[in-house]
Amino acid sequence: MDAGRIRNAALARKVVPAEEAAAVIRPGDNVGMSGFTGAGHPKAVPGALARRITEAQNAGDPFQVDLWTGASTAPELDGVLAAVDGIARRLPYQSDPVLRERINRGEVDYVDVHLSHVAQLAWEGFLGPLDVAVVEVSAITEDGLLVPSSSVGNNKTWLDLAERVVLEVNSWQPAGLAGMHDVYYGTALPPNRRPVQLTRPDDRIGVPHLLVDPDKVVAVVETDAPDRNTPFAAPDDTARAIAGHLIEYLQHEVSRGRLPAELLPLQSGVGNVANAVLAGLQESPFEQLTAYTEVIQDGMLDLLRSGTLASASATAFSLSPTAIADFTAHVDEFRDRILLRPQEISNHPEIIRRLGVLAMNGMIEADLYGNVNSTHLMGSRIQNGIGGSGDFARNAYVSFFVSPSTAKGGAISSIVPMVSHVDHTEHDVAVVVTEQGLADLRGLSPRRRARLVIDRCAHPDYRPMLTDYLDRAEHGAFGRHTPHLMTEALSWHARYASTGSMLPR
Amino acid sequence: MDAGRIRNAALARKVVPAEEAAAVIRPGDNVGMSGFTGAGHPKAVPGALARRITEAQNAGDPFQVDLWTGASTAPELDGVLAAVDGIARRLPYQSDPVLRERINRGEVDYVDVHLSHVAQLAWEGFLGPLDVAVVEVSAITEDGLLVPSSSVGNNKTWLDLAERVVLEVNSWQPAGLAGMHDVYYGTALPPNRRPVQLTRPDDRIGVPHLLVDPDKVVAVVETDAPDRNTPFAAPDDTARAIAGHLIEYLQHEVSRGRLPAELLPLQSGVGNVANAVLAGLQESPFEQLTAYTEVIQDGMLDLLRSGTLASASATAFSLSPTAIADFTAHVDEFRDRILLRPQEISNHPEIIRRLGVLAMNGMIEADLYGNVNSTHLMGSRIQNGIGGSGDFARNAYVSFFVSPSTAKGGAISSIVPMVSHVDHTEHDVAVVVTEQGLADLRGLSPRRRARLVIDRCAHPDYRPMLTDYLDRAEHGAFGRHTPHLMTEALSWHARYASTGSMLPR
Repeated sequence: MDAGRIRNAALARKVVPAEEAAAVIRPGDNVGMSGFTGAGHPKAVPGALARRITEAQNAGDPFQVDLWTGASTAPELDGVLAAVDGIARRLPYQSDPVLRERINRGEVDYVDVHLSHVAQLAWEGFLGPLDVAVVEVSAITEDGLLVPSSSVGNNKTWLDLAERVVLEVNSWQPAGLAGMHDVYYGTALPPNRRPVQLTRPDDRIGVPHLLVDPDKVVAVVETDAPDRNTPFAAPDDTARAIAGHLIEYLQHEVSRGRLPAELLPLQSGVGNVANAVLAGLQESPFEQLTAYTEVIQDGMLDLLRSGTLASASATAFSLSPTAIADFTAHVDEFRDRILLRPQEISNHPEIIRRLGVLAMNGMIEADLYGNVNSTHLMGSRIQNGIGGSGDFARNAYVSFFVSPSTAKGGAISSIVPMVSHVDHTEHDVAVVVTEQGLADLRGLSPRRRARLVIDRCAHPDYRPMLTDYLDRAEHGAFGRHTPHLMTEALSWHARYASTGSMLPR
Repeated sequence: MDAGRIRNAALARKVVPAEEAAAVIRPGDNVGMSGFTGAGHPKAVPGALARRITEAQNAGDPFQVDLWTGASTAPELDGVLAAVDGIARRLPYQSDPVLRERINRGEVDYVDVHLSHVAQLAWEGFLGPLDVAVVEVSAITEDGLLVPSSSVGNNKTWLDLAERVVLEVNSWQPAGLAGMHDVYYGTALPPNRRPVQLTRPDDRIGVPHLLVDPDKVVAVVETDAPDRNTPFAAPDDTARAIAGHLIEYLQHEVSRGRLPAELLPLQSGVGNVANAVLAGLQESPFEQLTAYTEVIQDGMLDLLRSGTLASASATAFSLSPTAIADFTAHVDEFRDRILLRPQEISNHPEIIRRLGVLAMNGMIEADLYGNVNSTHLMGSRIQNGIGGSGDFARNAYVSFFVSPSTAKGGAISSIVPMVSHVDHTEHDVAVVVTEQGLADLRGLSPRRRARLVIDRCAHPDYRPMLTDYLDRAEHGAFGRHTPHLMTEALSWHARYASTGSMLPR
């Protein structure tokens, strides 16, 4: 352990083993933990809590907590707690396979919330009191200021609201992160809210540290453990095709004078397609772009280095082991061009609309009329959650939703007659992109959108079925504004659930 | 005609009959007209245009225009143009029976847009160029400034963007409207957008008039004709019951310390239930409330007069003939306490979130999981449109959706297993209210929401059917996070379409 990480004497005296820290958490507590996209979550206390829960359960005592985080975490948080059935209610986002399975068995109450809404929901008191915060930081200064680690998420809110605070100081996190964060302390509840005076993606409007009342800190735990850091997978042909359509479209919009040459701030979801878009931008003529997004991925470091990207604002990193090594070695190059903010600011509707963000998010499926499902398989089974996609899509200058046109080897079409769950309505979806092509839905009536989505985005195996549905719906529907057949609209999902394919036998 | 209404000499010389003004509109033009909730729309030129269209059609020449407005208008605008099949594309909102029928026959391309998005969509160029603006005003000053009439809507945008401008000066509008408007000229396209520095509902941030380049004004038409002014219907028992649940809830939230005693700014949709809520507030102990809303209805004038309401900000009036007479007679009492703003400001997500608006909107149906349909009957037939409900609900402090629990004499349940169209997702709906009761869905998982919605909001005739569906879905669904049966989820709508009732025979 790097002794220099805990430089405040009073807090240094509170260092205890993880087991002792976990003991401050009681059955039924509301617990706010750090963590966003597998970055900056506590590494030791959740495991110790899981062991405590198991002991209690073995003794016949029920023990569950409500768990609030920034977004997704990692096996050593959501995974271990879900494995021991230690989570009663979970919000606002998750992606853990063990936890997901419990949610879909109806064993965990999962509340899927817009990421920008979480802090205000908690402040407003609608979620109940926050009993404990467990927050990872990368260091504590002599004055007791907290240097955040690789995500900021809701940490400010948890530290402010919690009755008891546990800090994990993780010496694995690069010491050079110090100075990269921008924590805005100007939020309030209405009627006392003021404009957030941020007008450029790289504006600094806060302070580079988190504040905590030292009297509330009941334990400090030392760790030296990595973030989730998933290895980087090179984009496949499908992802590259999607990225190609997107970049061609952006160039077209610039040539039509509808976007400036340096575009507008980019937001991009996490994953294969997003990385392909970033790789595509690297090879494009674009320069001096900016990002106002949730997560900084591998590709963004490359873009920052080449100058394609001037700056990036986010709330978390999500880097591969290779990229994190590179980042740690060259952190000084990046410090002035990367900002990590609380998620209530990174995802703030006010700012996203003001900046005119170009929002690119993945989806599970879109329907003929441009409604998008980001969360549910076959209408019932939650995958991850809506995350920040709604914050960005609703307020974007242009909202893109991207997906391969099929999944499960062709057994699922991502373009369906009617989506089985709606996360983004027809009013919020501007452009749909698959490897087949791109459909710009702006200003089109539902029936025109439908023909375009079939022609441009659907996989050829499914196009005739979609056209057949639409033709029949245009004659048989209760109204022809949004032609649907209520007896068939969800039949593709029913067929998949019973036969394993949306294609008829 | 009050000669004093057109006090600018150059524009006075452009006065022509409506027929001559309508002649500047060409087949295929994009035409932006004033009008919001049947207030402030042009009264003469649309009729003259309709006659011109009929003449052209009789001569074998096709003649249609694309029509953009603020929101709904009146028979003498949407009605007459729809009757002659003169509208190719219509946005962003309508409520006209003749036009609605054409849309649902598939004869008009209707694009249903969040009201706060319209101005930016037009500025961004995604809708094509705006050829003509036809805007009603209540007067023209000596300096050529335009005094708006009973709605502001998108008039600023239409006047700024249009190549040719036609003004209707309506002497029916109270001269006393002058000074009541607040037109914000600080908008821009990104990357040049700045914070909108409005922090209280009654802040004035603009000027009390609209600007127009006089060289673009091709015609001025004098009118003396009333707004749509629907007579006021006293709330029925159902509306009063809904209002009672809402007001009891607000009092409860104040007593829990989750809302200030003077509440937060109110937004309320138009209609019977909204008026009942306003009437209920009149009888409640609340004082010094504020409104940040779209439309000022009869009830708000009463509240302003009694002091229950300190001020009201909106973009339009929607008054009964009785109320408009009262308003006109006492306009000086109201002038300092009523503001009319452009709809991009009245509905601005940035401001709605900052103020923490309490948003109360009607709905067609809600489902077990809190998804709301505001626009479509049986999934296909458009009623009016989403209007501003999305702007308010997404960004509200608390978003309420209200409806009687049944329609068509009990043949339709407004609580259904799955809504047939989604305008507000589960992530955006906080509270559902019917005359049966109120369900506060915040912080609840989908399955818990479902039980609460059935118990509190569903009509007793439909409760057993909903419970039966939910029970079976919890066992048979593809996942139990949001239990649905894809083969049955929309069966109530299918049954209504084929039998005229959601109840089984």
